[in-house]
Amino acid sequence: MKKILLLAGLLIFVSCDTEKVNSVDYKDASLSIDERVEALLAKMSIEEKVAQMRIFHANIGAKPDENGNLVLSKRVTKKLKLGIAGIKNPGEHIDPVAAAKLNNELQKYIIENNRWGIPALFVTESYNGVDAEGCTIFGRPMTSAASFNPDLVRRQWDVVGREARLRGMHMCHSPEADIVRDPRFGRMSEAFGEDTYLTTQMVKNAVIGVQGDYEGLGNGTHIGAVAKHFAGYGQVLGGSNFAAIEISERTLIDEIYPPFEAAVKEARTLGIMASHGDLNGVASHGNPELLTGVLRDQWGFDGYVVSDSNDIARLFYFMKVAESPEAAAQMGLEAGIDIDLYAEDSYSYLPEMVKKNPDLEKLIDRSVRRVLRTKFILGLFDNPYIDLEETKKGVRAASSLELAKESDLESIILLKNENSTLPLNKEKSMKVALLGPLLKENTKEMFESVSGSNITYVAEKGFHLTDEKGGAPKLLERDPKAINKLVNTAKSSDVVLLFLGGDKYTSKEAYFSNSTLGDRATIDPVGPQDELVEKIKALGKPVIVVLKHRRTLSINTIASKADAILDTWDLSEFGDESTARIIFGEVSPSGKSPVTIPRSIGQLPYHYSMKEINYKKEYLFLGKGPLYPFGHGLSYGDFEYSDISISSAELTPKTELTVSVKVTNNGSMKAKEVVQMYIKDEIGSVTRPDKELKGFEKISLDAGESKTVSFTITPKMLEFTGIFMEKVLETGDYTVKIGTSSQEYLETTFKLNK
Amino acid sequence: MKKILLLAGLLIFVSCDTEKVNSVDYKDASLSIDERVEALLAKMSIEEKVAQMRIFHANIGAKPDENGNLVLSKRVTKKLKLGIAGIKNPGEHIDPVAAAKLNNELQKYIIENNRWGIPALFVTESYNGVDAEGCTIFGRPMTSAASFNPDLVRRQWDVVGREARLRGMHMCHSPEADIVRDPRFGRMSEAFGEDTYLTTQMVKNAVIGVQGDYEGLGNGTHIGAVAKHFAGYGQVLGGSNFAAIEISERTLIDEIYPPFEAAVKEARTLGIMASHGDLNGVASHGNPELLTGVLRDQWGFDGYVVSDSNDIARLFYFMKVAESPEAAAQMGLEAGIDIDLYAEDSYSYLPEMVKKNPDLEKLIDRSVRRVLRTKFILGLFDNPYIDLEETKKGVRAASSLELAKESDLESIILLKNENSTLPLNKEKSMKVALLGPLLKENTKEMFESVSGSNITYVAEKGFHLTDEKGGAPKLLERDPKAINKLVNTAKSSDVVLLFLGGDKYTSKEAYFSNSTLGDRATIDPVGPQDELVEKIKALGKPVIVVLKHRRTLSINTIASKADAILDTWDLSEFGDESTARIIFGEVSPSGKSPVTIPRSIGQLPYHYSMKEINYKKEYLFLGKGPLYPFGHGLSYGDFEYSDISISSAELTPKTELTVSVKVTNNGSMKAKEVVQMYIKDEIGSVTRPDKELKGFEKISLDAGESKTVSFTITPKMLEFTGIFMEKVLETGDYTVKIGTSSQEYLETTFKLNK
Repeated sequence: MKKILLLAGLLIFVSCDTEKVNSVDYKDASLSIDERVEALLAKMSIEEKVAQMRIFHANIGAKPDENGNLVLSKRVTKKLKLGIAGIKNPGEHIDPVAAAKLNNELQKYIIENNRWGIPALFVTESYNGVDAEGCTIFGRPMTSAASFNPDLVRRQWDVVGREARLRGMHMCHSPEADIVRDPRFGRMSEAFGEDTYLTTQMVKNAVIGVQGDYEGLGNGTHIGAVAKHFAGYGQVLGGSNFAAIEISERTLIDEIYPPFEAAVKEARTLGIMASHGDLNGVASHGNPELLTGVLRDQWGFDGYVVSDSNDIARLFYFMKVAESPEAAAQMGLEAGIDIDLYAEDSYSYLPEMVKKNPDLEKLIDRSVRRVLRTKFILGLFDNPYIDLEETKKGVRAASSLELAKESDLESIILLKNENSTLPLNKEKSMKVALLGPLLKENTKEMFESVSGSNITYVAEKGFHLTDEKGGAPKLLERDPKAINKLVNTAKSSDVVLLFLGGDKYTSKEAYFSNSTLGDRATIDPVGPQDELVEKIKALGKPVIVVLKHRRTLSINTIASKADAILDTWDLSEFGDESTARIIFGEVSPSGKSPVTIPRSIGQLPYHYSMKEINYKKEYLFLGKGPLYPFGHGLSYGDFEYSDISISSAELTPKTELTVSVKVTNNGSMKAKEVVQMYIKDEIGSVTRPDKELKGFEKISLDAGESKTVSFTITPKMLEFTGIFMEKVLETGDYTVKIGTSSQEYLETTFKLNK
Repeated sequence: MKKILLLAGLLIFVSCDTEKVNSVDYKDASLSIDERVEALLAKMSIEEKVAQMRIFHANIGAKPDENGNLVLSKRVTKKLKLGIAGIKNPGEHIDPVAAAKLNNELQKYIIENNRWGIPALFVTESYNGVDAEGCTIFGRPMTSAASFNPDLVRRQWDVVGREARLRGMHMCHSPEADIVRDPRFGRMSEAFGEDTYLTTQMVKNAVIGVQGDYEGLGNGTHIGAVAKHFAGYGQVLGGSNFAAIEISERTLIDEIYPPFEAAVKEARTLGIMASHGDLNGVASHGNPELLTGVLRDQWGFDGYVVSDSNDIARLFYFMKVAESPEAAAQMGLEAGIDIDLYAEDSYSYLPEMVKKNPDLEKLIDRSVRRVLRTKFILGLFDNPYIDLEETKKGVRAASSLELAKESDLESIILLKNENSTLPLNKEKSMKVALLGPLLKENTKEMFESVSGSNITYVAEKGFHLTDEKGGAPKLLERDPKAINKLVNTAKSSDVVLLFLGGDKYTSKEAYFSNSTLGDRATIDPVGPQDELVEKIKALGKPVIVVLKHRRTLSINTIASKADAILDTWDLSEFGDESTARIIFGEVSPSGKSPVTIPRSIGQLPYHYSMKEINYKKEYLFLGKGPLYPFGHGLSYGDFEYSDISISSAELTPKTELTVSVKVTNNGSMKAKEVVQMYIKDEIGSVTRPDKELKGFEKISLDAGESKTVSFTITPKMLEFTGIFMEKVLETGDYTVKIGTSSQEYLETTFKLNK
């Protein structure tokens, strides 16, 4: 009897509530977003709701014909009758204006063909510019990270957000907030490196950049970010994509979560994407503790969580943690995945499942609210179309292209510069050989545009590293003559520039089949590159190596033979021009390595913030320490660090400290320098990192100029997860290290007292 | 007022208690051990108690002079006045009878020179025989693991226990119960391999063997075991000794703890040693959850916990989790370390510390009880001396040496045997070349003793792999003529046996200084070994490689060139003789690899029980799977598996199943085979291993003989740690795989219903 009464009461309550929301018009822009969401939700059928939890890829049938007009497949028109959460990459292969026009058409079709006129989210990827035809291409995130300039990242992602919106996009599945510490992983360069603090600064600025003013997202100038992959991706065992992940709870909290936490709490990212694979045995797409507990309950995230491609269905057919596709759908829904990316056989089952288990509708409503809310925040109900004139003006604006070049110049890392080999003097006549497998067709042209008429070039690629046969990248058979031919070419030159590293096949995202492998079991340079550098070096001419790559490489031979090494990772579309400008001294290099460069793959895992005994470890027959440390990068300036001082020898939980250092450029050239502050907690209740980056500032110093750089040390910076898994701030001795890399610095100390 | 009353009450109570225990005589052997312990403890001063918590090494001043008579340093005699928990390795460098005599003298001195006549524990290590002069040397644990014969391990460790006791020892800091999965780790071969189940069987039998009948430990025929290193050692990051350890809680419970749990609960080990380093940030020597929570509260361990060498002091000076040596001592004491191994500046502070903090005495008493209890269990108060006549008869008994040979013969793994290269026919005249850096001085002699007069030998080591200079092992400069000289020698032979692998310096325990490195960053064979096998192969003669090593090596070249490979790890003192007996077909090899042999170091971590996606992973340009899988090992027999059957298709929590398979030896020679049973849980609430070894049986089959092997499957075998960290038994589909390795098997299935 009680049960029936209670049920009746609930029904009445629900009924009242429904009546109330039905009386408001979700199209009324004067209402609050929450009011509009509730009003709309109340009208929707279960099938329409579930449609708001699915994204499909445009390649299944929403494409332009030869004239750029929209053609929809039957499969797609059938889907769109119920509405859709979003579509991935519509118009990706056409130019921005054509794409904007296409996407206007597509959006119009969607709005006019579902009962409530709900617009769709058009989604892209954008880690180095919008992943579509005709947009500005910046350097990859790892390259940006090397700039140690978060403002540059913010400005870059601002351009990305604008260009994406101008072609009709609304969300991007970027940035990557993962900490990447295993160079075997093919996606390494999509993230911002090994360090938690640096990554946090970069991710925060990427989200702020791409989203613009959060409150102004409805104005239609920017797009929403989706920080990914939550959590632990980038730590896949063996660097193997989709693999299991083992990270202790303490490491998760102190090292893996912070970039996500900042994306949520400081940058207000609209979306989060879950991680492939598992985390300590629990599938990330079925992990309520992670997706609801940590993300929403602890951090207050109120956007939506999207699955990675097909990953809800994979809970059944790949992860084998669900006994059926339906069980997988329920697991994803309960864990807190709001949108299913791509899978046809997962959330599609929800409407049937609700018939048997009506409680599921509450969870569906929870997710649909989040999706609709996002669409209202982005102004899609009120302002769904793009002004093509704006697109014409806005994409690839001169300032955006300049910014790509500016970013390059700040991201190139001078790893080595024996006897001031660099910069080359373009006033002096000389013949430069541009050689090696990473040479591009227009490299010579770009160098010529920078160096003027005194410098003459000979350019020869010599050999390719890989080939793609039957869809599968293969190592190329070595042509024994190729090296000798390059050596002969080099003989007639005064200086040799070798373009070495990896091509697009030697490091890429790995899926399942043989043709989509991208993770590697070695980080040695592929092919006869070491042999090339050895033989060229034997000529006795200056050898400058330009490294291009998407994973950390083990470059012992290059490091021992080259006179100078520029580590450029993967620069913008103007990369070789930027490299030439650095080589000829227009600008001093100022990039710093965002990763520890090991002597061998056998040193892995190897990052500068490990426990002391790991970081400093020496193996039998190997030698001590890394080849180049995190934060390392030389300059054409000559920086002297002096006069480190601290405002007090004591810190308390309620005070702050200021640490200052004087940096002088004793060189004869203006140059930028990244001043890095590391802190070491000398004694902790748990074992503590060898040191941790806690601040950095990029400064510019004229020849002879000095600047004092100051950092504030707050008690918050010193917190960590203690022995009982709670945040602790521990009294005792701390050392502050300020310098030019994680291994060269001045030190001062303070004591934290309670 | 109340407080004072309460205090008075307590005092009266304590006083009564003390009076009672003082009235019993701890020397009265008719009393229970607990009564004797309490009686003795009540008499002891705080300094005497703390002395029972320390072990020193005999090399600080308890040694024999030239005539074998005991000489004590002043430092030692001073210590012994208070008594001592134990002394490590007294008499290690003299023969067993001399050691027994010396140890009798030492024990007598100790008993007669401390107030209460408390005897000391004499402690050794014994992972492949007693670590002292003149005892039987067995193969290393990894070698024993390859036998897949726990009974052999039990018998071997029974000999070890007897030989140790006969030279006056009472405890050994063995066996190692760690799961070793990183071949960079120099101590890899001290443990029983990568698998939890196999290691558990071996550790349990080692403890039972070395301790003999637990109830009869007081009879003085065996010694107590100390299973080590609790917990996670063997998983040190990067294979680097003393490094941090990251293991998720679920993996700890399901994969790392079981060998320790079996040592405690099934084999009743008297001691446990804590692990160097940390476990997920918490120093293992300061981890009460581990040393008291898991070990004692969960498993009911009632022996003592000993530190690893100096590790309590290291909480301060190395791990930096304690602010002073005193704080380190308190941390170790509170966590549950009962005995401090070696450190002079750690538990030595306890008497002073108790003055300021009297509560500590309760913890000291807790530890001293455990130590005294152990001494009573071992009968040391009643029967402290050794009968030298027994020592003379008992050490290196013929049966023990035979057992060492028997163990060898069961442990040699035939990795490859192309075209039945092995066995060699000793009835046929041939000239055999024994070549390579792992050849020993008496190898040829041992081969001759086995093969008789038809076989003639030429033996040439050719080159050494390493040299020790200034205490530090160095790779030897390669003599370009050495390989050619070996090739020339090989030319005149009919068959070439290459002795390859690693020497004593290429894999060993690593400490801190340059001279004690032992971990490596590569697992490639050291020196020109690959070149040697390539050039010898080019001669067109049969090439048989005998691998001797202490870490897993990456043997791609050897695997592709050799006609046959015998993987012998590190056999007994009769190793080469045993190898010869296998080579000439006296016995068929029956060892199985206790580790996955990877294609390259870049595949690490790599063990067969990983999640499916990790285990089957393929890297770009590498190839699929391991080089040789876990459990692999060929035979001179020819085994056919057939007729797999299961007693029911359904299991319930209260039933059991029997799975049977028929194994037939279709070969012409009697041979042993390890029949292996793996179970795969097809769907789990957490991601499940690709498969898990859950049973094995070593059988012997005559030529043409068949046997049916049966395994019982119990619900207990299927338990794992579920999503909420509790033990779960999950309904659903399971596959049973029975076969000759982890990759070759027959399958059947069953369903678990509730």
